[in-house]
Amino acid sequence: MNSHPHQHEHTEAVLNRLSRAIGHLESVRKMVEEGRDCSDVLIQIAAVKSAVNNIGKIILKDHIKSCVVDATVTGDDTVLEDLNVAIDQFMK
Amino acid sequence: MNSHPHQHEHTEAVLNRLSRAIGHLESVRKMVEEGRDCSDVLIQIAAVKSAVNNIGKIILKDHIKSCVVDATVTGDDTVLEDLNVAIDQFMK
Repeated sequence: MNSHPHQHEHTEAVLNRLSRAIGHLESVRKMVEEGRDCSDVLIQIAAVKSAVNNIGKIILKDHIKSCVVDATVTGDDTVLEDLNVAIDQFMK
Repeated sequence: MNSHPHQHEHTEAVLNRLSRAIGHLESVRKMVEEGRDCSDVLIQIAAVKSAVNNIGKIILKDHIKSCVVDATVTGDDTVLEDLNVAIDQFMK
């Protein structure tokens, strides 16, 4: 767990985007419940997937800009190791 | 809009997975609010992205199995055209 106050440049934007993605996924759930056209559902699923991916990219960039740069200054190698695991998961 | 009753073999599974993905995304939002480690957040974002992708694959397979096969019998070309648009969105 990091000891520095864990706020980033885009934390507010990330929270807003997460809230929107949650609302979007709830509307997709309603579409499936209502038996809406599969092609329309798939297009909305694709939009959510893309939104979640973009949120990940913002978090990754913010993380590199602050945490990784801090860790480099302090010589904390575990931050880079943890990030590499996360990148492997995120980009597969 | 399709006129047939729009239930598929895996509709219940899709609804359950959508509910779980919504809950998962809410927990990610909480992690970001609490300033949790970025690498941990990224790993959870990756898991949600993968879950959303898998939901899309189930919907696509269900759709091909029922709607597309029905449409082929009735000669309704618009179903295939709509699906192709959806696949282009979903797989990019």
